[in-house]
Amino acid sequence: MPTAFPLPVPAIPTAPVTAELRDALRAIVGEKGFIEDEHGKQPFVTDWRGLLVGGAGAVIRPGNTEEVSKVVRLCHDHGVAIVPQGGNTGLMGAATPWPAHTGIVLSLGRMNRVLDVDPVGYAMTVEAGCVLQTLQETAAAHDRFLPLSLGAEGSCMIGGNLSTNAGGVQVLRYGNARNLVFGLEVVLPNGDVWNGLRALKKDNTGYDLKHLFMGAEGTLGIITKAVLKLWPAPKDVATAWLAVRDPRAALEILSEAHAASEDNVGSCELLSRAAVDLVMRHIPGVQDPLRADTPWYLLLEWSSSRPRQDGADGMSEKLEQFLADQLEAGRVVDAVIAQTVSQSRNMWRIREAMAEASRAEGPGISYDMSVAISRIPEFIDKGLKAVLDILPSIRPYPLGHIGDGNLHFSFMGPIGMDQQTLNQYTAAITRAVNDLITSMGGSISAEHGIGIEKLDELNHYRSKTELDIMRTIKRALDPQNIMNPGKVLRV
Amino acid sequence: MPTAFPLPVPAIPTAPVTAELRDALRAIVGEKGFIEDEHGKQPFVTDWRGLLVGGAGAVIRPGNTEEVSKVVRLCHDHGVAIVPQGGNTGLMGAATPWPAHTGIVLSLGRMNRVLDVDPVGYAMTVEAGCVLQTLQETAAAHDRFLPLSLGAEGSCMIGGNLSTNAGGVQVLRYGNARNLVFGLEVVLPNGDVWNGLRALKKDNTGYDLKHLFMGAEGTLGIITKAVLKLWPAPKDVATAWLAVRDPRAALEILSEAHAASEDNVGSCELLSRAAVDLVMRHIPGVQDPLRADTPWYLLLEWSSSRPRQDGADGMSEKLEQFLADQLEAGRVVDAVIAQTVSQSRNMWRIREAMAEASRAEGPGISYDMSVAISRIPEFIDKGLKAVLDILPSIRPYPLGHIGDGNLHFSFMGPIGMDQQTLNQYTAAITRAVNDLITSMGGSISAEHGIGIEKLDELNHYRSKTELDIMRTIKRALDPQNIMNPGKVLRV
Repeated sequence: MPTAFPLPVPAIPTAPVTAELRDALRAIVGEKGFIEDEHGKQPFVTDWRGLLVGGAGAVIRPGNTEEVSKVVRLCHDHGVAIVPQGGNTGLMGAATPWPAHTGIVLSLGRMNRVLDVDPVGYAMTVEAGCVLQTLQETAAAHDRFLPLSLGAEGSCMIGGNLSTNAGGVQVLRYGNARNLVFGLEVVLPNGDVWNGLRALKKDNTGYDLKHLFMGAEGTLGIITKAVLKLWPAPKDVATAWLAVRDPRAALEILSEAHAASEDNVGSCELLSRAAVDLVMRHIPGVQDPLRADTPWYLLLEWSSSRPRQDGADGMSEKLEQFLADQLEAGRVVDAVIAQTVSQSRNMWRIREAMAEASRAEGPGISYDMSVAISRIPEFIDKGLKAVLDILPSIRPYPLGHIGDGNLHFSFMGPIGMDQQTLNQYTAAITRAVNDLITSMGGSISAEHGIGIEKLDELNHYRSKTELDIMRTIKRALDPQNIMNPGKVLRV
Repeated sequence: MPTAFPLPVPAIPTAPVTAELRDALRAIVGEKGFIEDEHGKQPFVTDWRGLLVGGAGAVIRPGNTEEVSKVVRLCHDHGVAIVPQGGNTGLMGAATPWPAHTGIVLSLGRMNRVLDVDPVGYAMTVEAGCVLQTLQETAAAHDRFLPLSLGAEGSCMIGGNLSTNAGGVQVLRYGNARNLVFGLEVVLPNGDVWNGLRALKKDNTGYDLKHLFMGAEGTLGIITKAVLKLWPAPKDVATAWLAVRDPRAALEILSEAHAASEDNVGSCELLSRAAVDLVMRHIPGVQDPLRADTPWYLLLEWSSSRPRQDGADGMSEKLEQFLADQLEAGRVVDAVIAQTVSQSRNMWRIREAMAEASRAEGPGISYDMSVAISRIPEFIDKGLKAVLDILPSIRPYPLGHIGDGNLHFSFMGPIGMDQQTLNQYTAAITRAVNDLITSMGGSISAEHGIGIEKLDELNHYRSKTELDIMRTIKRALDPQNIMNPGKVLRV
C-alpha cells in the first residue's frame, strides 16, 4: 500500500476536466463509457503491481475509433492530457497516470472486436482492446498461429502490446510485436485518424509511420486497430531440458541448432541453477527435469508446422540426434527430451513461474537488459563481479531469452535482509549494471520499455543527439504535449 | 538522350556552391573526394536508365563518417542542398538531383569497408558504400547468409538498399531490407551523427529511429553504417517449375507449402505464359522447363540450412510429395523439380531476364503494386479488364512475387505501336490501375519507392492526414529542407 509516489514527478501542464468538458465527454461515449467516481477509477489509475497510484479527472472508455477521435479532439482543444491504457499490465508505468494528472485515462477495453480473419493471406484485423489470449485462440481456430506470447497474455491487450513493442518467449523465431504487424489505425494527438490499416507485406510509399507508433508507449498517438500477421500453426513440437557447460556453450548450441533444426528453433531460454532452485522451493508440483547439479540449463524448443510423417524423422528425432552431437562436443552435460505434453508443460512451468517464485522468496532486484548475442557470456561474468563487489552476499539467479541477447539479470537480497536495507544498495548496483550494459553497446530496457520507471536512466544513457531526435519528433506530432505526457521523455 | 527533364520540377530553394564553399569542401574530403568537372560529375547526376539528368555544383565523396558529418554541417550552415547517393541503381530517381539543383551530390561509394563479422551473433557491421554482392560473399565466406538479393546486386550499395527499404526475391521468407537490420549510424541534416549502431535483437528504449530512416530515401538523413542481421547459410535447396491452374491455385499452393516445407519456402514467383514467352523469344540459351501451353506458372523454391542427411527426406523429396498432392488436388497441372544446378539456374534465368527481354521486345509499361496476398487473383482479373478496356490490343505479361502480394503488373505495347503513341494512353491506364489498387487497399509502390517518379501519385492517393504526418516529421528533422529536397514529398 504505497503512501507516496516512489519516483520524481515531472511538472506537466495539464488542464482539468471541467464540468462543461465532463458533459461533452459523456455525450460522446455515453454512461457506460464514463467513470468519475473514485472507486470506479481506482483500477485504471493504479499499476498492476500496486506500486504506482496516479490521478485522473475521469476515465473514458470509448466504444469505437470515432469516439476515440472525438474524445481526443475535445481534449486537444482544451489542453487536457490523455493517458491511453490497454490491459494495464505494463511493468514500467507507461499506462499509469502521474499523481498530478488532472486529465483523462482513455481505456481501450471496450474496443475488443476481431474484425476480420484471412487465413489464406495469413492476416487478422483487430481492435486495440482485444485480449492477447483471445487473439491467440482466434488464430488457432483458423489453423493459424499468432506468435506473441508473454506472462500477462490472459489480460494484456493487443493495443498495449503494440504500443510497447512487447517481447516474450517467441521473439527468437518470430521477432518482437512490431514484427507481427502489417498495418495500424492510430488516433493522433489532434484527434485526426490515420488509417494505415493495410494488409500489405510490401509498401514503399513514404515514411514507415507504423514503426514510429509502435514502441512509443502512447506518447505519439493511440493505436486503435491493427492488421496482424499470422503464421502456420505448429504441428510437431519437441521440447528439451539441457544441463550445459556454461553460457558460452549455450550460445554455441543455439548457433548450431538453427541449421540442425532447419531453422525451426522456437525458444531457447537460459536458466541458472539458482533460478531453477527458486522455483523448486516455492512452486508446488514442479519437477526438476534433470537431477543434475550443474550451474546452467537451457530450455530448448523446436517446432514445425509440418505434422509428423510416418517413417520420416520428426522434430524429436532431429533434436535427439542434435543433443547426442552436442553431448559429444562437450557443450551439453546431460539432457532430456519431453516425452509427454505434461513433461513439456513442467519444463515451461519452471521458466514461467520465475516471477511468482521470486516474489515468494523475498525482496530482490532485476534488470531487463540486452547486449549483442555473442557478448552474453562476457556480460554475465563482468556483471556478476560488479554486483558482488558492491554487495557480496547478494544472491544472483540470472536467466533469460539468450537467443535474443536478452537477460533478466536478477538477484535476491542476502538472506535475512529486508527491502529497506536492500534499497540502500540499489542505486549503486543499478548504476554499475547500467554502466556495464552501456559500455558493451547494450540496452537498459530490452523488452519492458521506459514508461515512468526508466525516464531518468534513458536520459542518462542515451546520447544528446538521440534524445534530441526523439524530442523533435514528439514536439512536432504533439506540440501541446497532451498525449501521455512525461512518459518515455520528460520533453 | 533526353533533352528535357520528363517530369514537373518543384521549386526548391537551394544555395549554390560558392568558391569559398568549394575550398572548404575540398579541405574536408581532399582531391580524390571532390569532383566538379562536367565529365566527372556526369555519372552521378544521371540515373542509370539515362532518363533523368540533373545538376550539381559538385560531387563529394567522403571517406568516412566524420567527413560526411563535416560536409553536411557545412552545407547546413550555408543552406546548400544535398542529394545522397549509393550505387545509383534506383528506379524512381531518388538518388538523381533535380535539374535546378545547385548543391552537392554526396556519394557514399568510398565508404566500402566491412568493419566486423560476428558469425556467432549472426551480425555484420558495414559501411554504407559496400556493394551488396560483396556483402553476400562476405557472409558466405563465414558460412552465413545475407538474404537481400535483387537484380542490381552487382553494383547497388547497402546504404541505398536500406534508404529505399529494398525488396527482391527473398522477401517472402526474410522480409524487406528493413527486416535485415539491427542498427544504423546516420548523419542528420544538421551534421550531427546519430550512433544507433547496436547489434541488439531487443531494445525498447524510446522511439524506433532506425525504421524512420529506412525507406525515407535520404530525405531525413544519410545512412553511413549499419549492423546487418545474418542467417544460417542454405545447404539443401529444391527448385521447381509448376504449371498451375490459375493465380488462385498459386495462392492456395503457397498457403499449403508453408507447412509442407516446415516453413522453408524461400521464393514463390508467379509468371504468366506471355512473360515466359517474352524471355524465350529474346534470351538465347534459356529452355522452357515444361512444354505446357497453360497460362500460369510458378517458380517455387524451398531451402533449408540443414544439409541433406543420409536416409532422411531432403527438400527435394518433400517437395516431390507436395507436388504430387497438389497435382491430385487439381491446383498443379504439371511440374518439374530441377535435378541439377544448371536446371535450377535456367528456371531462375527466366525470372531474372524479364527486364532484359521486355526491353528487347519494345515499348511497354509496368506497375510495381501490392495488395493483400489473398486479393491478388481478384486484382489480376479486374486490372486486366480495366487496362484492356482502354487499349484492347495492349499485351499483358503479369508476373511477380505472389508470396508478397507484389506484382509487376506489366504490359507490352500493341504490336507495331511506337513509344510516342503508347504514351498517349499511359496517363489513362496509370490512373485506372492506381485507382483500382487504391480501392483494394493496396500500394502503388510495393518495392521501388517514390523518389521523383511517383511524387504526384503519392500526393494524389495518400490521405491528407498521412501526408501531414510525413511533412511534419520532414520539417521537424530538416527545417531548412536541404536533405534530398523534393523527393518523396514536395514539402
